[in-house]
Amino acid sequence: MAVVIAIAGSEDHAKKLAAKLDAELISPEVRQFPDGELYVRIDHDLTGRDVILVGSLYPRPAEKFLAVAFLAATARDLGAKRVGLVAPYLAFMRQDVRFKAGEGVTSRYFAQLVSGTVDWMVTVDPHLHRHAALEGLYSIPTSIARSAPEIARWVAAEVERPMLIGPDAESAQWVSAVAAGCGAPFVILEKTRRGDRDVSISSPLVSQGHTLDGHTPVLIDDIVSTGKTMIEATRQLRAAGAAPPMCVAIHAVFADNVLDDLTSAGAAGIITCDTIVHASNRICVADPIAEAAKHHLR
Amino acid sequence: MAVVIAIAGSEDHAKKLAAKLDAELISPEVRQFPDGELYVRIDHDLTGRDVILVGSLYPRPAEKFLAVAFLAATARDLGAKRVGLVAPYLAFMRQDVRFKAGEGVTSRYFAQLVSGTVDWMVTVDPHLHRHAALEGLYSIPTSIARSAPEIARWVAAEVERPMLIGPDAESAQWVSAVAAGCGAPFVILEKTRRGDRDVSISSPLVSQGHTLDGHTPVLIDDIVSTGKTMIEATRQLRAAGAAPPMCVAIHAVFADNVLDDLTSAGAAGIITCDTIVHASNRICVADPIAEAAKHHLR
Repeated sequence: MAVVIAIAGSEDHAKKLAAKLDAELISPEVRQFPDGELYVRIDHDLTGRDVILVGSLYPRPAEKFLAVAFLAATARDLGAKRVGLVAPYLAFMRQDVRFKAGEGVTSRYFAQLVSGTVDWMVTVDPHLHRHAALEGLYSIPTSIARSAPEIARWVAAEVERPMLIGPDAESAQWVSAVAAGCGAPFVILEKTRRGDRDVSISSPLVSQGHTLDGHTPVLIDDIVSTGKTMIEATRQLRAAGAAPPMCVAIHAVFADNVLDDLTSAGAAGIITCDTIVHASNRICVADPIAEAAKHHLR
Repeated sequence: MAVVIAIAGSEDHAKKLAAKLDAELISPEVRQFPDGELYVRIDHDLTGRDVILVGSLYPRPAEKFLAVAFLAATARDLGAKRVGLVAPYLAFMRQDVRFKAGEGVTSRYFAQLVSGTVDWMVTVDPHLHRHAALEGLYSIPTSIARSAPEIARWVAAEVERPMLIGPDAESAQWVSAVAAGCGAPFVILEKTRRGDRDVSISSPLVSQGHTLDGHTPVLIDDIVSTGKTMIEATRQLRAAGAAPPMCVAIHAVFADNVLDDLTSAGAAGIITCDTIVHASNRICVADPIAEAAKHHLR
């Protein structure tokens, strides 16, 4: 019987995964010493067991990574046969190329660190943009759990006459998959990024005076961090006379003051998958995670 | 010519090391994205160069480690021949054994992570207690820079009739080395630890009514974190009628409210080596660091 261990913040996913895989859920002791160093303890004999660490690598990705590395090593010391990582949200996927001379390609470096730490990994819709697949980055077996079917189900149940909208080319992969799942039409806008918090969006729909024809716009993206992309897309749609868009994000990273800014820009609201715990979570991705994890157990 | 690159907080050591090794000092660009992920950039061609990263792994050891790992990988991508780490303060050395069943031996796990990241390492007086040497932990070549000669020089110059005192058995190695360097007498007290912030000290000197005979007590330890050990030792000495002790720490970790508590307990003051930047730094360890680093350059 496999053993599931939660990293702080992902207790809910760990519990669901243990139930779906018929695995044993155990709680590690993880705390900080007064100087900020981590203490980890797993008070169980793990001899010959398949161990699954469950933890989104956000917030504080560096600390979360070290907790994963220390718990994985502890599990091995306690006899674990194999240790896998289920990271509903995978950090460091966005710096996937050298934009300027001398930049570190951190998605590759982080993949090397994780690959040296666990035997396999499952994540939900990683930000694969310039990399086609995790295989090119990670040297361990990996699987991707897809949120699109769950998002499609939510859209079909909750939104009348949806028109799916991707705010930029990177979002096309998620938007088209959701569209395929719920049979809704979709359109992809064009984005120019000038800085971490500075983007502009141009919409062919809007420039053609198209107001979505009575459809409810549903903006879909994988990661909403500062939210500048969603906010700018919302503004463009509203300025063109479209109905308030419903925003859907897979990963609720939510840096800065995203929620207020989105409302001010004219969004109807924002809902998210539960890869990162947040009040906006409406779509549970436990099923695709369990399906993906299952293939790594022996 | 070697290249020296500072991790945030260790710019001063990097500058001194570059000067002493006649190396080139370059500044990396390291910043956080709004979501807390690290961005690193080294805008230099490093083809065939020996690169030395200089950074104490405190505070926020997990973030500091990731910065080291990312800068090391970036330097290699930019052609560096070998990448070494000079960590004046090395984190995760204190959990060096399994005190309770199931505990992670983080000193070993952290050593494995660092060994997978750089080609060699130099540190100042790591907390080697139950491990006899770094060789048993690190699989890369390592050297230890010793602060004792510098501390001995400071004590000889600044303290009249010093009596060196180690608050517990773990401190004996540092105290005896300083004593050897300045020809002062020394004594080691006995400590019982009941928790992260709860210790008791018993002093054979005090129980025998010995008030140090006009000597100035100089308490010496490697790490002062919560300071409970130093504070308790100070209290015992003062209660027995000794003069206010001068406290000397190699590494100014200083969690909690150490400085006020030490003064309240009756210490004359606390001074430290500059392995961690702090207002109490009085003893520069740049010379022994440069000596140790020199042997790793080719």
